[in-house]
Amino acid sequence: MASAANAISLSLSIAAASSSSSRRDNYSYSPESSCLSFRKPSGGVSLRLRPVTGASLATRRSSCIVHATSAPVMDPSPVSESGSAGAPTVVEVELGNRSYPIYIGSGLLNQPNLLQRHVHGKRVLVVTNETVAPLYLDRVVEALTQGNPNVTVESVVLPDGEKHKNMDVLMKVFDKAIESRLDRKSTFVALGGGVIGDMCGYAAASYLRGVNFIQIPTTLMSQVDSSVGGKTGINHPLGKNMIGAFYQPQSVLIDTDTLNTLPDRELASGISEVVKYGLIRDAEFFEWQEKNMSALLARDPSALAYAIKRSCENKAEIVSLDERETGLRATLNLGHTFGHAIETGFGYGQWFHGEAVAAGMVMAADLSYRLGWIDDSLVKRVRNILEQSRLPVAPPESITMEMFRSIMAVDKKVADGVLRLILLKGPLGNCVFTADYDRKALDDTLQEFCKS
Amino acid sequence: MASAANAISLSLSIAAASSSSSRRDNYSYSPESSCLSFRKPSGGVSLRLRPVTGASLATRRSSCIVHATSAPVMDPSPVSESGSAGAPTVVEVELGNRSYPIYIGSGLLNQPNLLQRHVHGKRVLVVTNETVAPLYLDRVVEALTQGNPNVTVESVVLPDGEKHKNMDVLMKVFDKAIESRLDRKSTFVALGGGVIGDMCGYAAASYLRGVNFIQIPTTLMSQVDSSVGGKTGINHPLGKNMIGAFYQPQSVLIDTDTLNTLPDRELASGISEVVKYGLIRDAEFFEWQEKNMSALLARDPSALAYAIKRSCENKAEIVSLDERETGLRATLNLGHTFGHAIETGFGYGQWFHGEAVAAGMVMAADLSYRLGWIDDSLVKRVRNILEQSRLPVAPPESITMEMFRSIMAVDKKVADGVLRLILLKGPLGNCVFTADYDRKALDDTLQEFCKS
Ligand SMILES: NC(=O)c1ccc[n+]([C@@H]2O[C@H](COP(=O)([O-])OP(=O)(O)OC[C@H]3O[C@@H](n4cnc5c(N)ncnc54)[C@H](O)[C@@H]3O)[C@@H](O)[C@H]2O)c1
Ligand SMILES: NC(=O)c1ccc[n+]([C@@H]2O[C@H](COP(=O)([O-])OP(=O)(O)OC[C@H]3O[C@@H](n4cnc5c(N)ncnc54)[C@H](O)[C@@H]3O)[C@@H](O)[C@H]2O)c1
Ligand SMILES: [Zn+2]
Ligand SMILES: [Zn+2]
Repeated sequence: MASAANAISLSLSIAAASSSSSRRDNYSYSPESSCLSFRKPSGGVSLRLRPVTGASLATRRSSCIVHATSAPVMDPSPVSESGSAGAPTVVEVELGNRSYPIYIGSGLLNQPNLLQRHVHGKRVLVVTNETVAPLYLDRVVEALTQGNPNVTVESVVLPDGEKHKNMDVLMKVFDKAIESRLDRKSTFVALGGGVIGDMCGYAAASYLRGVNFIQIPTTLMSQVDSSVGGKTGINHPLGKNMIGAFYQPQSVLIDTDTLNTLPDRELASGISEVVKYGLIRDAEFFEWQEKNMSALLARDPSALAYAIKRSCENKAEIVSLDERETGLRATLNLGHTFGHAIETGFGYGQWFHGEAVAAGMVMAADLSYRLGWIDDSLVKRVRNILEQSRLPVAPPESITMEMFRSIMAVDKKVADGVLRLILLKGPLGNCVFTADYDRKALDDTLQEFCKS
Repeated sequence: MASAANAISLSLSIAAASSSSSRRDNYSYSPESSCLSFRKPSGGVSLRLRPVTGASLATRRSSCIVHATSAPVMDPSPVSESGSAGAPTVVEVELGNRSYPIYIGSGLLNQPNLLQRHVHGKRVLVVTNETVAPLYLDRVVEALTQGNPNVTVESVVLPDGEKHKNMDVLMKVFDKAIESRLDRKSTFVALGGGVIGDMCGYAAASYLRGVNFIQIPTTLMSQVDSSVGGKTGINHPLGKNMIGAFYQPQSVLIDTDTLNTLPDRELASGISEVVKYGLIRDAEFFEWQEKNMSALLARDPSALAYAIKRSCENKAEIVSLDERETGLRATLNLGHTFGHAIETGFGYGQWFHGEAVAAGMVMAADLSYRLGWIDDSLVKRVRNILEQSRLPVAPPESITMEMFRSIMAVDKKVADGVLRLILLKGPLGNCVFTADYDRKALDDTLQEFCKS
């Protein structure tokens, strides 16, 4: 068992190493400053590659040693090496005695200590799904048990898909936990995308009224958004995410290598949320994305690590300031009101969430421009970056103005009958959450984007 | 609707007034000191009875004006009037920004402001069951809406019984909440015993990741124990209370008049927990109970209010010190390990929880005595007070030593294979939570109480 897992991690490390040089064409590395700067489209790259040694997994590091900086968000040199090679980038979510670290980097699943230091008690339950289990379950079990014979790891493999994010499937997690006699000191580990993270988190919040919980998100969407901030839950037949808990994990472990197996459309869906952070509060990050989108789409580990880090920093800061969404946190919903109408009107599962949000952000930008709140040029930049990410920039043709109007009328952000929207206002990186906008402009935007 | 509710509350108030004089034979009231002292078995009683006037329900008070003191637990004069007639006794549960009041008294359901001040938002969902709804639902709806036309009240009536404390029935609460379009600012109200309180609390914790929540406990068990402390949850087919949340209410409203409709056995079951508080930490309260048990069994409102108040104070103090049961809170389980074995071995629902706990407390006292930790006389006092409460003082004959041993081996309080017990040690009112006791003595206790 141990050697089989060794073999897997070894071969993946090598794969990452051998493919990395072809993906690095947008960077230049300066050994003097330990700083990697991005110059698109030209620029050679020099990478320090460390061979994978036979040393114990506990100390072995990934072969890809280019890591994102842990400098503050506004640092103008976006990517630099973070100290020793292979050390993960760490973003701290500040929530008093519920604060926790997010580890970001390539090959982190081969660093058992990152996981083990957050496991309390002797029993672990890994919650994953049919798609992710064959890809990563063995490695996670290995990382949990390597050099740690006292720990018993159980796993439960759920069916894949948003339609299984319900109470019946959640009960399977409880069944397994009780059959395995997991006690209050157990740790639940979510291994998968946002669906698994949300379900496992809610199960951890509820089992014996709360057990430890670790997130290992494996989609870009979950790495930049859903695994951070403590929102957990399941769907009710009558509404999405209606049942759940605010429940923070002990830690989040983001191994960017897991994105190598993610379908392109899923990757793009996550990029939509990355773009969102730039638009609502981080102009520099948006500019960085404009320069580095092709590296992201090519799954360059260091570009991904940087984009994930900066996304997590933005989300962590918002969550620290407004954990329970009394105001500020609502700005994370830029494009989501239009997007939600698209998801509902078009039928869930037709478009991915990030795709609907992309079209929604273009609509929000259009409306902001009509209100005179932003320049024409910003609308174009929003459209361009999303098009480059192969994301839709308009709703599907079948969605009518009337559908938008009726669905948006029952949005969660309607208060006392008035629809509040997140809109861009001022220079790039600024937004408002407001009910104070001209309804005529909204009508014009809907008219512009709908065939009927 | 409003006038029908008026009529109901009116007739109940009158009933309470006319029956109260016959129940007061253990008290003497001294108008000078505003102090009611308990002298059992003799002593006349003088009661100030206020007629129910036609004044608005918002200000009308119950006709029973004898109230428990809000003096600290150690106050030697246990019962006194708390300021103005009809004002509830208030016990505060101190939990920082999640602190909340417990209101205790007779006729409190006729004081709409006590409920209304804790309702946030405009929509309320009352969760109750088939037994309690016909008795009290109209009055609660009336108390919520009286003089408060902006509030809409919905209700959901669940089937009665521990066997319905499960996920399927919980979903009915969510169904109703979503159909009624309750938003994050809604308030859930639990109206019923511990089953309803635990379920409604967990639903409130989970609906939209948490909405406001008010407890109106209507059994003695829920008034002295389950409504205080924030443990909420449901059963899993494989175990009791396995799925839930720590979730504190906004307030707890205890109208002692609701106990008038409670069956005798249910009342006695609650008294078992009252006796427990005396034994584990409040000698004076135990002595008070010894003197006033017949008043409690006769449902004397002031005796009940005092017993409930002092129970809530004890529980609130323990919960403030150890909300998530890391140690101290475990002492609330005196007699519960033996009791749980009885409930499991005999079949759930055969004996009520408090009945099993009563037998369990006698066994714990017996074991404590065998260990040389308490006097013979204390064992007798435990047995006597429970017998007086018409509670069992030994397990059912069908439970064997072997059943005790095997069921207790998987108790939640087993840590690393060792069974920890709450046992009495020292003078009345002192207990320990320990794994450090002679197993031979435990065997002797089991032998003593089991036929085989
Ligand atoms: N909690 C929050 O704050 C929050 C925020 C945003 C979204 N969400 C929730 O997240 C969910 C969407 O998350 P998602 O986009 O990750 O969807 P998902 O979890 O359904 O994952 C998308 C698909 O990718 C597969 N997959 C996952 N990792 C893979 C990998 N490494 N390689 C190959 N395939 C992989 C999954 O099995 C699935 O088929 C929604 O349910 C949404 O409500 C929650
Ligand atoms: N959360 C906690 O800390 C905690 C503590 C102790 C017990 N509990 C839970 O509480 C439950 C037991 O509570 P319980 O003893 O109140 O049982 P219960 O809720 O089943 O109520 C007992 C019976 O009395 C009926 N009833 C309620 N109020 C009445 C009234 N005023 N008049 C007439 N009938 C009335 C009920 O419908 C029921 O049939 C268990 O599920 C237990 O797990 C929880
Ligand atoms: Zn989103
Ligand atoms: Zn109990």
